[in-house]
Amino acid sequence: MEKTIPGIIVGRLPIYLQALQHLHQQQVQTTSSQELGQIIGISAAQIRKDLSQFGEFGKQGKGYSVPYLIDQLQAILHVDRVWDMVLVGAGNLGHAIAEYPEFVHHGFRISMIFDNDPKRIGTKMGDFVVQDMEKLVPLVQQAGIKVAMLTVPARAAQAVTDDLVSAGIRAILNYAPIILSVPEGIQVQYIDPIIFLQRMTYYLD
Amino acid sequence: MEKTIPGIIVGRLPIYLQALQHLHQQQVQTTSSQELGQIIGISAAQIRKDLSQFGEFGKQGKGYSVPYLIDQLQAILHVDRVWDMVLVGAGNLGHAIAEYPEFVHHGFRISMIFDNDPKRIGTKMGDFVVQDMEKLVPLVQQAGIKVAMLTVPARAAQAVTDDLVSAGIRAILNYAPIILSVPEGIQVQYIDPIIFLQRMTYYLD
Repeated sequence: MEKTIPGIIVGRLPIYLQALQHLHQQQVQTTSSQELGQIIGISAAQIRKDLSQFGEFGKQGKGYSVPYLIDQLQAILHVDRVWDMVLVGAGNLGHAIAEYPEFVHHGFRISMIFDNDPKRIGTKMGDFVVQDMEKLVPLVQQAGIKVAMLTVPARAAQAVTDDLVSAGIRAILNYAPIILSVPEGIQVQYIDPIIFLQRMTYYLD
Repeated sequence: MEKTIPGIIVGRLPIYLQALQHLHQQQVQTTSSQELGQIIGISAAQIRKDLSQFGEFGKQGKGYSVPYLIDQLQAILHVDRVWDMVLVGAGNLGHAIAEYPEFVHHGFRISMIFDNDPKRIGTKMGDFVVQDMEKLVPLVQQAGIKVAMLTVPARAAQAVTDDLVSAGIRAILNYAPIILSVPEGIQVQYIDPIIFLQRMTYYLD
Protein backbone atom coordinates (compact mmCIF):
# COMPACT_ATOMS: atom_id res chain seq x y z
CA MET A 1 0.00 0.00 0.00
CA GLU A 2 2.69 2.49 0.99
CA LYS A 3 4.22 2.50 -2.48
CA THR A 4 1.10 3.93 -4.08
CA ILE A 5 0.62 7.06 -1.92
CA PRO A 6 1.78 10.22 -3.73
CA GLY A 7 4.86 11.86 -2.24
CA ILE A 8 3.00 15.13 -1.88
CA ILE A 9 0.59 13.51 0.60
CA VAL A 10 3.36 11.74 2.50
CA GLY A 11 5.07 15.13 2.73
CA ARG A 12 2.13 16.60 4.62
CA LEU A 13 1.93 13.87 7.28
CA PRO A 14 4.84 15.23 9.38
CA ILE A 15 3.10 18.62 9.38
CA TYR A 16 -0.11 17.03 10.67
CA LEU A 17 1.91 15.16 13.29
CA GLN A 18 3.62 18.38 14.39
CA ALA A 19 0.27 20.18 14.77
CA LEU A 20 -1.17 17.24 16.73
CA GLN A 21 1.84 17.20 19.06
CA HIS A 22 1.38 20.94 19.54
CA LEU A 23 -2.26 20.31 20.58
CA HIS A 24 -1.20 17.42 22.80
CA GLN A 25 1.25 19.67 24.67
CA GLN A 26 -1.66 21.97 25.36
CA GLN A 27 -3.61 19.00 26.84
CA VAL A 28 -6.07 18.93 23.94
CA GLN A 29 -7.56 15.40 23.68
CA THR A 30 -9.81 15.69 20.62
CA THR A 31 -9.49 17.71 17.45
CA SER A 32 -11.11 18.14 14.05
CA SER A 33 -9.86 18.57 10.50
CA GLN A 34 -11.13 22.17 10.78
CA GLU A 35 -8.99 22.90 13.84
CA LEU A 36 -5.93 21.19 12.33
CA GLY A 37 -6.49 23.10 9.11
CA GLN A 38 -6.57 26.40 10.92
CA ILE A 39 -3.32 25.69 12.73
CA ILE A 40 -1.50 24.57 9.59
CA GLY A 41 -3.17 26.65 6.91
CA ILE A 42 -4.44 23.70 4.83
CA SER A 43 -8.11 23.10 4.05
CA ALA A 44 -10.04 20.69 6.28
CA ALA A 45 -11.15 18.76 3.19
CA GLN A 46 -7.52 18.23 2.13
CA ILE A 47 -6.60 16.93 5.58
CA ARG A 48 -9.53 14.49 5.64
CA LYS A 49 -8.67 13.29 2.12
CA ASP A 50 -4.98 12.84 2.97
CA LEU A 51 -5.66 10.91 6.18
CA SER A 52 -8.28 8.70 4.50
CA GLN A 53 -5.49 7.29 2.32
CA PHE A 54 -4.09 5.57 5.39
CA GLY A 55 -7.24 4.39 7.18
CA GLU A 56 -10.19 5.54 9.29
CA PHE A 57 -8.83 7.64 12.13
CA GLY A 58 -11.86 9.62 13.27
CA LYS A 59 -15.56 9.11 13.86
CA GLN A 60 -18.04 11.12 11.79
CA GLY A 61 -18.96 14.19 13.84
CA LYS A 62 -16.71 13.19 16.75
CA GLY A 63 -13.37 14.33 15.35
CA TYR A 64 -10.00 12.73 15.98
CA SER A 65 -8.51 11.49 19.23
CA VAL A 66 -5.23 13.46 19.44
CA PRO A 67 -3.09 10.77 21.16
CA TYR A 68 -4.48 8.02 18.92
CA LEU A 69 -3.82 9.95 15.70
CA ILE A 70 -0.30 10.82 16.93
CA ASP A 71 0.41 7.11 17.49
CA GLN A 72 -0.95 6.19 14.09
CA LEU A 73 1.03 8.86 12.23
CA GLN A 74 4.22 7.96 14.11
CA ALA A 75 3.78 4.34 13.02
CA ILE A 76 3.06 5.31 9.40
CA LEU A 77 6.13 7.58 9.30
CA HIS A 78 8.26 4.93 11.07
CA VAL A 79 9.12 7.29 13.91
CA ASP A 80 7.63 5.02 16.56
CA ARG A 81 11.30 4.09 16.97
CA VAL A 82 14.52 6.15 17.22
CA TRP A 83 16.74 6.43 14.13
CA ASP A 84 20.47 6.90 14.63
CA MET A 85 21.90 9.63 12.44
CA VAL A 86 25.32 10.67 11.26
CA LEU A 87 26.07 14.38 10.93
CA VAL A 88 28.75 15.38 8.41
CA GLY A 89 30.13 18.92 8.69
CA ALA A 90 31.11 20.39 12.06
CA GLY A 91 30.88 24.10 11.18
CA ASN A 92 28.40 26.60 12.65
CA LEU A 93 25.42 24.94 11.02
CA GLY A 94 26.56 21.49 12.17
CA HIS A 95 26.96 22.87 15.69
CA ALA A 96 23.49 24.40 15.66
CA ILE A 97 21.98 21.12 14.48
CA ALA A 98 23.92 19.04 17.01
CA GLU A 99 22.46 21.24 19.75
CA TYR A 100 18.91 20.99 18.45
CA PRO A 101 17.00 19.53 21.39
CA GLU A 102 13.94 18.21 19.55
CA PHE A 103 15.32 15.25 17.58
CA VAL A 104 14.98 12.62 20.27
CA HIS A 105 11.33 13.41 20.95
CA HIS A 106 10.53 12.93 17.27
CA GLY A 107 12.28 9.71 16.32
CA PHE A 108 15.91 10.74 15.75
CA ARG A 109 19.25 10.83 17.55
CA ILE A 110 22.63 12.00 16.29
CA SER A 111 25.16 9.28 17.01
CA MET A 112 28.27 10.28 15.05
CA ILE A 113 29.75 13.54 13.74
CA PHE A 114 32.43 13.77 11.04
CA ASP A 115 34.50 16.53 9.46
CA ASN A 116 37.65 16.62 7.32
CA ASP A 117 39.20 19.72 8.92
CA PRO A 118 42.19 18.72 11.12
CA LYS A 119 41.38 21.67 13.40
CA ARG A 120 37.94 20.22 14.11
CA ILE A 121 38.77 16.49 14.26
CA GLY A 122 39.08 15.36 17.86
CA THR A 123 37.25 18.38 19.30
CA LYS A 124 34.06 17.95 21.33
CA MET A 125 30.74 18.97 19.84
CA GLY A 126 27.90 18.55 22.31
CA ASP A 127 28.29 15.01 23.61
CA PHE A 128 30.37 13.89 20.63
CA VAL A 129 33.95 13.91 19.47
CA VAL A 130 34.25 15.06 15.85
CA GLN A 131 35.71 12.16 13.87
CA ASP A 132 37.86 12.09 10.76
CA MET A 133 35.89 11.86 7.48
CA GLU A 134 38.40 9.18 6.40
CA LYS A 135 36.80 6.80 8.89
CA LEU A 136 33.21 7.53 7.88
CA VAL A 137 32.56 4.56 5.60
CA PRO A 138 33.72 1.78 7.96
CA LEU A 139 32.24 3.36 11.11
CA VAL A 140 28.82 4.14 9.63
CA GLN A 141 28.67 0.73 8.00
CA GLN A 142 29.59 -1.03 11.23
CA ALA A 143 26.99 0.91 13.22
CA GLY A 144 24.31 0.22 10.59
CA ILE A 145 23.24 3.89 10.47
CA LYS A 146 20.73 4.66 7.71
CA VAL A 147 20.07 8.42 8.07
CA ALA A 148 22.54 11.29 7.49
CA MET A 149 22.51 15.08 7.75
CA LEU A 150 24.87 16.96 5.47
CA THR A 151 26.15 20.40 6.53
CA VAL A 152 29.32 20.60 4.44
CA PRO A 153 30.07 23.30 1.82
CA ALA A 154 28.39 22.80 -1.56
CA ARG A 155 31.69 21.91 -3.27
CA ALA A 156 32.21 18.94 -0.92
CA ALA A 157 28.63 17.68 -0.81
CA GLN A 158 28.63 15.24 -3.74
CA ALA A 159 31.83 13.45 -2.68
CA VAL A 160 30.53 13.07 0.87
CA THR A 161 27.21 11.82 -0.50
CA ASP A 162 29.00 9.12 -2.49
CA ASP A 163 30.74 7.99 0.71
CA LEU A 164 27.48 8.02 2.65
CA VAL A 165 25.75 5.90 0.03
CA SER A 166 28.58 3.37 -0.04
CA ALA A 167 28.41 3.23 3.77
CA GLY A 168 24.77 2.11 3.54
CA ILE A 169 23.01 5.43 4.23
CA ARG A 170 19.52 5.46 2.73
CA ALA A 171 18.21 8.93 3.63
CA ILE A 172 20.12 12.22 3.41
CA LEU A 173 18.96 15.61 4.70
CA ASN A 174 21.05 18.03 2.65
CA TYR A 175 21.69 21.59 3.86
CA ALA A 176 24.27 22.31 1.15
CA PRO A 177 22.80 24.43 -1.66
CA ILE A 178 23.44 21.87 -4.39
CA ILE A 179 21.38 19.16 -6.07
CA LEU A 180 22.84 15.74 -5.19
CA SER A 181 22.98 12.80 -7.50
CA VAL A 182 22.17 9.49 -5.74
CA PRO A 183 21.26 5.97 -6.85
CA GLU A 184 17.59 5.07 -7.06
CA GLY A 185 16.06 4.18 -3.71
CA ILE A 186 18.12 6.69 -1.72
CA GLN A 187 15.96 9.44 -0.22
CA VAL A 188 17.19 13.03 -0.31
CA GLN A 189 15.50 16.07 1.19
CA TYR A 190 16.82 19.60 0.76
CA ILE A 191 16.78 22.42 3.29
CA ASP A 192 17.63 25.61 1.47
CA PRO A 193 16.43 28.88 3.01
CA ILE A 194 16.23 30.50 -0.43
CA ILE A 195 13.43 28.16 -1.53
CA PHE A 196 11.36 29.12 1.51
CA LEU A 197 12.07 32.84 1.18
CA GLN A 198 11.06 32.84 -2.48
CA ARG A 199 7.78 31.11 -1.60
CA MET A 200 6.96 34.17 0.48
CA THR A 201 8.20 37.00 -1.75
CA TYR A 202 5.75 35.76 -4.40
CA TYR A 203 3.07 37.25 -2.14
CA LEU A 204 4.92 40.50 -1.40
CA ASP A 205 5.05 43.53 -3.65
CA MET B 1 -4.24 36.56 -11.32
CA GLU B 2 -1.65 35.84 -8.62
CA LYS B 3 -4.29 35.47 -5.93
CA THR B 4 -5.87 32.49 -7.61
CA ILE B 5 -2.83 30.22 -7.99
CA PRO B 6 -2.79 27.45 -5.36
CA GLY B 7 -0.02 27.74 -2.78
CA ILE B 8 1.17 24.24 -3.61
CA ILE B 9 2.03 25.35 -7.16
CA VAL B 10 3.68 28.59 -6.01
CA GLY B 11 5.73 26.43 -3.63
CA ARG B 12 7.23 24.47 -6.52
CA LEU B 13 8.36 27.52 -8.54
CA PRO B 14 11.51 28.15 -6.45
CA ILE B 15 12.46 24.51 -6.98
CA TYR B 16 12.10 24.90 -10.75
CA LEU B 17 14.14 28.11 -10.55
CA GLN B 18 16.87 26.35 -8.58
CA ALA B 19 17.07 23.52 -11.13
CA LEU B 20 17.20 26.03 -14.01
CA GLN B 21 19.99 27.97 -12.32
CA HIS B 22 21.84 24.68 -11.85
CA LEU B 23 21.53 24.01 -15.61
CA HIS B 24 22.54 27.60 -16.39
CA GLN B 25 25.74 27.20 -14.35
CA GLN B 26 26.54 24.19 -16.51
CA GLN B 27 26.10 26.37 -19.64
CA VAL B 28 22.89 24.58 -20.67
CA GLN B 29 20.82 26.94 -22.87
CA THR B 30 17.68 24.88 -23.54
CA THR B 31 15.85 22.36 -21.42
CA SER B 32 12.63 20.35 -21.37
CA SER B 33 10.04 19.49 -18.74
CA GLN B 34 11.44 15.93 -18.93
CA GLU B 35 14.96 17.06 -18.06
CA LEU B 36 13.75 19.38 -15.28
CA GLY B 37 11.57 16.58 -13.94
CA GLN B 38 14.52 14.19 -13.79
CA ILE B 39 16.64 16.70 -11.88
CA ILE B 40 13.91 17.51 -9.36
CA GLY B 41 12.00 14.25 -9.15
CA ILE B 42 8.64 15.69 -10.28
CA SER B 43 6.74 14.46 -13.36
CA ALA B 44 7.20 16.38 -16.62
CA ALA B 45 3.41 16.70 -16.91
CA GLN B 46 3.20 18.36 -13.49
CA ILE B 47 5.92 20.86 -14.41
CA ARG B 48 4.20 21.77 -17.69
CA LYS B 49 0.87 22.14 -15.90
CA ASP B 50 2.37 24.31 -13.15
CA LEU B 51 4.20 26.61 -15.57
CA SER B 52 1.15 26.95 -17.82
CA GLN B 53 -0.63 28.71 -14.93
CA PHE B 54 1.71 31.65 -15.43
CA GLY B 55 1.97 31.85 -19.22
CA GLU B 56 3.50 30.26 -22.28
CA PHE B 57 7.21 29.83 -21.64
CA GLY B 58 8.24 27.19 -24.15
CA LYS B 59 7.57 26.28 -27.75
CA GLN B 60 5.96 22.91 -28.51
CA GLY B 61 8.76 20.46 -29.26
CA LYS B 62 11.46 23.11 -28.75
CA GLY B 63 11.60 23.09 -24.96
CA TYR B 64 12.37 26.05 -22.71
CA SER B 65 15.09 28.66 -23.04
CA VAL B 66 16.93 28.37 -19.72
CA PRO B 67 17.88 32.07 -19.31
CA TYR B 68 14.42 33.24 -20.42
CA LEU B 69 12.59 30.92 -18.01
CA ILE B 70 14.95 31.98 -15.18
CA ASP B 71 14.08 35.64 -15.86
CA GLN B 72 10.37 34.90 -15.96
CA LEU B 73 10.37 32.88 -12.73
CA GLN B 74 12.46 35.51 -10.95
CA ALA B 75 9.90 38.15 -11.94
CA ILE B 76 6.96 35.98 -10.85
CA LEU B 77 8.61 35.26 -7.48
CA HIS B 78 9.61 38.95 -7.09
CA VAL B 79 13.28 38.09 -6.79
CA ASP B 80 14.27 40.18 -9.79
CA ARG B 81 15.19 42.65 -7.04
CA VAL B 82 17.10 42.27 -3.73
CA TRP B 83 15.10 42.05 -0.49
CA ASP B 84 16.68 43.35 2.70
CA MET B 85 16.29 40.95 5.60
CA VAL B 86 16.56 41.14 9.36
CA LEU B 87 18.00 38.14 11.22
CA VAL B 88 16.92 37.67 14.84
CA GLY B 89 18.99 35.28 16.95
CA ALA B 90 22.79 35.39 16.90
CA GLY B 91 23.51 31.85 18.11
CA ASN B 92 25.19 29.08 16.09
CA LEU B 93 22.31 28.80 13.66
CA GLY B 94 22.18 32.57 13.20
CA HIS B 95 25.92 32.57 12.56
CA ALA B 96 25.63 29.81 9.97
CA ILE B 97 22.85 31.65 8.18
CA ALA B 98 24.69 34.98 8.28
CA GLU B 99 27.63 33.26 6.55
CA TYR B 100 25.48 31.63 3.90
CA PRO B 101 26.93 32.94 0.64
CA GLU B 102 23.99 32.28 -1.67
CA PHE B 103 21.40 34.83 -0.55
CA VAL B 104 22.57 37.73 -2.66
CA HIS B 105 22.54 35.73 -5.89
CA HIS B 106 18.93 34.75 -5.25
CA GLY B 107 17.22 37.98 -4.29
CA PHE B 108 18.08 38.45 -0.61
CA ARG B 109 20.54 40.29 1.62
CA ILE B 110 20.81 40.31 5.41
CA SER B 111 20.96 43.93 6.53
CA MET B 112 20.46 43.79 10.32
CA ILE B 113 21.07 41.22 13.07
CA PHE B 114 19.49 41.36 16.54
CA ASP B 115 19.80 39.38 19.77
CA ASN B 116 18.77 40.00 23.39
CA ASP B 117 21.86 38.43 25.00
CA PRO B 118 24.14 41.16 26.46
CA LYS B 119 27.16 38.94 25.69
CA ARG B 120 26.27 38.97 21.99
CA ILE B 121 25.06 42.57 21.59
CA GLY B 122 27.83 44.71 20.11
CA THR B 123 29.87 41.76 18.81
CA LYS B 124 30.63 41.38 15.11
CA MET B 125 28.90 38.69 13.09
CA GLY B 126 30.17 38.60 9.52
CA ASP B 127 29.91 42.19 8.33
CA PHE B 128 27.38 43.15 10.99
CA VAL B 129 27.30 44.28 14.57
CA VAL B 130 24.70 42.39 16.61
CA GLN B 131 22.15 44.92 17.82
CA ASP B 132 19.95 44.98 20.90
CA MET B 133 16.49 43.43 20.42
CA GLU B 134 15.10 46.45 22.26
CA LYS B 135 15.87 48.56 19.19
CA LEU B 136 14.36 46.14 16.68
CA VAL B 137 10.97 47.80 16.15
CA PRO B 138 12.16 51.35 15.42
CA LEU B 139 15.19 50.26 13.35
CA VAL B 140 13.33 47.76 11.16
CA GLN B 141 10.45 50.16 10.70
CA GLN B 142 12.78 52.99 9.72
CA ALA B 143 14.64 50.81 7.22
CA GLY B 144 11.38 49.53 5.73
CA ILE B 145 12.52 45.89 5.90
CA LYS B 146 9.78 43.38 5.02
CA VAL B 147 11.49 39.98 5.40
CA ALA B 148 12.81 38.35 8.59
CA MET B 149 14.60 35.16 9.56
CA LEU B 150 14.01 33.86 13.07
CA THR B 151 16.70 31.74 14.75
CA VAL B 152 15.78 32.28 18.40
CA PRO B 153 14.82 29.51 20.86
CA ALA B 154 11.22 28.27 20.62
CA ARG B 155 10.23 29.92 23.90
CA ALA B 156 11.18 33.38 22.57
CA ALA B 157 9.81 33.01 19.05
CA GLN B 158 6.24 34.27 19.50
CA ALA B 159 7.24 37.46 21.35
CA VAL B 160 9.86 38.26 18.70
CA THR B 161 7.28 37.56 16.00
CA ASP B 162 4.87 40.05 17.56
CA ASP B 163 7.65 42.67 17.50
CA LEU B 164 8.52 41.86 13.88
CA VAL B 165 4.90 42.21 12.81
CA SER B 166 4.52 45.53 14.56
CA ALA B 167 7.74 46.69 12.87
CA GLY B 168 6.14 46.07 9.47
CA ILE B 169 7.67 42.67 8.61
CA ARG B 170 5.46 40.76 6.16
CA ALA B 171 7.35 37.49 5.67
CA ILE B 172 9.03 35.37 8.37
CA LEU B 173 11.25 32.35 7.83
CA ASN B 174 11.01 30.54 11.16
CA TYR B 175 13.72 28.08 12.26
CA ALA B 176 12.31 27.77 15.80
CA PRO B 177 10.38 24.50 16.25
CA ILE B 178 7.10 26.20 17.14
CA ILE B 179 3.98 27.20 15.23
CA LEU B 180 3.70 31.01 15.17
CA SER B 181 0.50 32.94 15.35
CA VAL B 182 0.45 35.96 13.01
CA PRO B 183 -2.23 38.31 11.63
CA GLU B 184 -3.75 37.51 8.26
CA GLY B 185 -1.59 38.60 5.34
CA ILE B 186 1.73 37.85 7.08
CA GLN B 187 3.63 35.01 5.38
CA VAL B 188 5.35 32.40 7.53
CA GLN B 189 7.49 29.50 6.35
CA TYR B 190 8.93 26.87 8.68
CA ILE B 191 12.30 25.16 8.46
CA ASP B 192 12.25 22.24 10.85
CA PRO B 193 14.65 19.37 10.13
CA ILE B 194 12.28 16.88 11.78
CA ILE B 195 9.61 17.42 9.12
CA PHE B 196 12.13 16.61 6.37
CA LEU B 197 13.58 13.61 8.19
CA GLN B 198 10.12 12.12 8.75
CA ARG B 199 9.31 12.51 5.05
CA MET B 200 12.20 10.12 4.38
CA THR B 201 11.74 7.57 7.16
CA TYR B 202 8.29 6.85 5.72
CA TYR B 203 10.18 5.11 2.91
CA LEU B 204 12.65 3.28 5.17
CA ASP B 205 11.95 0.06 7.05
